[in-house]
Amino acid sequence: MSELISAVEAVDVRFPTSLHLDGSDAMNPEPDYSAAYVTVRTSGGGEGHGLAFTVGRGNEVEVAAVRALAPLVVGLPVEEVLGDLGAFSRRLTGDSQLRWLGPEKGAVHMAAAAIVNAVWDLYGRRTGKPVWRLLSELSPEQLVDLVDFRYLEDALTREEALDILRRAEPGRAERTARLLDRGYPAYTTTPGWLGYDDEKLVRLSKEAVVEGFSLIKLKVGADLDTDVRRMRLARAAVGPDVRIAVDANQAWGVRQAIDWMRALAPYDPYWIEEPTSPDDILGHAVVRAALAPIKVATGEHTHNQVMFKQLLQARALDVLQLDASRTAGVTENVAVLLLAAKFGVPVCPHAGGVGLCEMVQHLAMFDYVAVSGTTDDRVIEYVDHLHEHFTAPVRLRDGRYLAPTTPGLGAELHPASIAAHRYPDGPVWREAATP
Amino acid sequence: MSELISAVEAVDVRFPTSLHLDGSDAMNPEPDYSAAYVTVRTSGGGEGHGLAFTVGRGNEVEVAAVRALAPLVVGLPVEEVLGDLGAFSRRLTGDSQLRWLGPEKGAVHMAAAAIVNAVWDLYGRRTGKPVWRLLSELSPEQLVDLVDFRYLEDALTREEALDILRRAEPGRAERTARLLDRGYPAYTTTPGWLGYDDEKLVRLSKEAVVEGFSLIKLKVGADLDTDVRRMRLARAAVGPDVRIAVDANQAWGVRQAIDWMRALAPYDPYWIEEPTSPDDILGHAVVRAALAPIKVATGEHTHNQVMFKQLLQARALDVLQLDASRTAGVTENVAVLLLAAKFGVPVCPHAGGVGLCEMVQHLAMFDYVAVSGTTDDRVIEYVDHLHEHFTAPVRLRDGRYLAPTTPGLGAELHPASIAAHRYPDGPVWREAATP
Repeated sequence: MSELISAVEAVDVRFPTSLHLDGSDAMNPEPDYSAAYVTVRTSGGGEGHGLAFTVGRGNEVEVAAVRALAPLVVGLPVEEVLGDLGAFSRRLTGDSQLRWLGPEKGAVHMAAAAIVNAVWDLYGRRTGKPVWRLLSELSPEQLVDLVDFRYLEDALTREEALDILRRAEPGRAERTARLLDRGYPAYTTTPGWLGYDDEKLVRLSKEAVVEGFSLIKLKVGADLDTDVRRMRLARAAVGPDVRIAVDANQAWGVRQAIDWMRALAPYDPYWIEEPTSPDDILGHAVVRAALAPIKVATGEHTHNQVMFKQLLQARALDVLQLDASRTAGVTENVAVLLLAAKFGVPVCPHAGGVGLCEMVQHLAMFDYVAVSGTTDDRVIEYVDHLHEHFTAPVRLRDGRYLAPTTPGLGAELHPASIAAHRYPDGPVWREAATP
Repeated sequence: MSELISAVEAVDVRFPTSLHLDGSDAMNPEPDYSAAYVTVRTSGGGEGHGLAFTVGRGNEVEVAAVRALAPLVVGLPVEEVLGDLGAFSRRLTGDSQLRWLGPEKGAVHMAAAAIVNAVWDLYGRRTGKPVWRLLSELSPEQLVDLVDFRYLEDALTREEALDILRRAEPGRAERTARLLDRGYPAYTTTPGWLGYDDEKLVRLSKEAVVEGFSLIKLKVGADLDTDVRRMRLARAAVGPDVRIAVDANQAWGVRQAIDWMRALAPYDPYWIEEPTSPDDILGHAVVRAALAPIKVATGEHTHNQVMFKQLLQARALDVLQLDASRTAGVTENVAVLLLAAKFGVPVCPHAGGVGLCEMVQHLAMFDYVAVSGTTDDRVIEYVDHLHEHFTAPVRLRDGRYLAPTTPGLGAELHPASIAAHRYPDGPVWREAATP
């Protein structure tokens, strides 16, 4: 009898990060980094782990969304699923009733991401490969089979996607070797959280340079005078050659974004991230045209490939920041990487949160080996939070992510971490509730 | 002591509509029309009812999303809430943790809609007015105070919105009287569900004309030959003077939409609704440019005002189909109506489902009285399903909605209907589960 997917489990896991204002920004003053943590099990004893990252309240809705999708998955033959992961994604995102809650956006789409990523993790474990390597060893035909072109064909056809992948094919082995040797460039958001005081900002900025980062990021958007002061301090701390990106986390309207950034321009910001509503494609295009050569970056809230398609078509962004669990996981992100390559826009994944660094590194490394073929102007976000809870945490050296070698996608939490941070009944939260 | 909001209750209510293929279309072959049904109660014994419409599976996620928002609402003073409904909406859609699941889209945004609508219902009951009339009697200043302009100002400023409302002010009384006398034009989707056979299509199309409708709608997008045959039959049935709209429910890519509609063009379709992904603003603009004078209609899946803003800025639609519970309820729909008026695009609300007809009529009638000031080329969708479950069902006469006079928003279900259709424990579903 063939091996079946026997269970899709979801757990509400939350970390009380709001206590130290880690992760504080203009729109997220007090996040409790959380995850709808998913384990997919097979009748043969296999397992895969994935998660949807959230920032606290509402994580239970995400868990409910995973449970709503689970019946579409349990009972499927494992070989059938792994043999056509494109169809598997469409099964999750295209269910004729559940898609009403999206379609392809919000809680149900993030839940699909968590399950899709868990299945890629399972696939990696079965083949003994980290997912970046698994992806990088698929043929161009296998890769384009993952993509749902229905809504993309006016920007990217199957043939164009094949061409991109075929052009990169001859260099795969060399780039794989280089990646294993040198890793992939990172940047750090650690110095710049809005809740940190000036002294901590300056100290952490200097430390970042010493640690080898060539780009740091500051949160902005709450108060202009404060932002000017912090930007000036940070620029003085890191010198003229280290890039400083700023991130408004959607705080501004279109006009306001332009005015605010002009006040920061003397300190040479490299990119402005999420200047306005993440849905405002045309607004981003206006901001970009007004602020060049300051780059516009967005993507962590871009909810699906149709939105990325338009951001690219409208020339609305310079830096595409895909996310591991906002779009529907590894599978949809293959499409996003191909779109970015078609339009020549570098991908710098969003990370931090819970397990995002662990997951997105696979996508950036696959992009380097088999899609764009370059790391020029490409960096993976790095935040030094919560890695200790993962069984295969990211490894950084000299401001670079080392290529993971552990099979799978890297999103597995230690059982003890899950038990401690289960919400609301884990000991961390029971203690927090005690006056 | 001041009156407080004392409870926000949510119930999972589902109707087994899939048994008869009512509501079947190219993307929703077998919907079970459902609602996360919300009751807001006050310490003074007041109540208001709202709902988020879904099509079955996942309704429990919507209920979970309402429950996640409820703690933001319970305990608020009623007068404070009703005195600043703009701030109340932002409280629900801007919660720094819950917004991660959107932002302003998907399950959490629809849950906000259900609560916001329940509070408008409460407001209507307290003032003894149907919501269309309540809105139509607010001053231009009070109305613009409902709008969150942060992400809109590049398309619509507060001053422009005030101008629109002030221009319409002198005619309010006359139009109110005319509305009470003649009602508001409707169109019917009843003949055109994809699951109906040719005989039923022809019979219902003819009946629609006899009933006074001047526009009917057919579902298309599953099979081209079938669509051509059905369109030909419907055109023959209604004659040349009745408008026939077609609705693809997102089934096509951009190129495919254009090709498919050119095959239907000989039968004079009035609008093509949801030709492609509802997120594809630029795609809709391409389709519209290619198919003119066939109109492009969309909106039932347009998840917030920022998306509507762009559809208007990009000249991507001819007919704006707002929805009662996709955007965040009455409050956000005031902004959508003002945007549409600014761009001169007629609003023809999406309805059907569960209680959508009951709710959207208030928005269209308010638009007529106090915003656009006209019903030219404007029609409210009508589907004759499930109205018997509501305490104040819509009333149609000669193809027109009669203006509701019952205080509130009209979304209150009969207690017996709730009890019978509770999922999964109501008798309708217990019976369905019995083999």
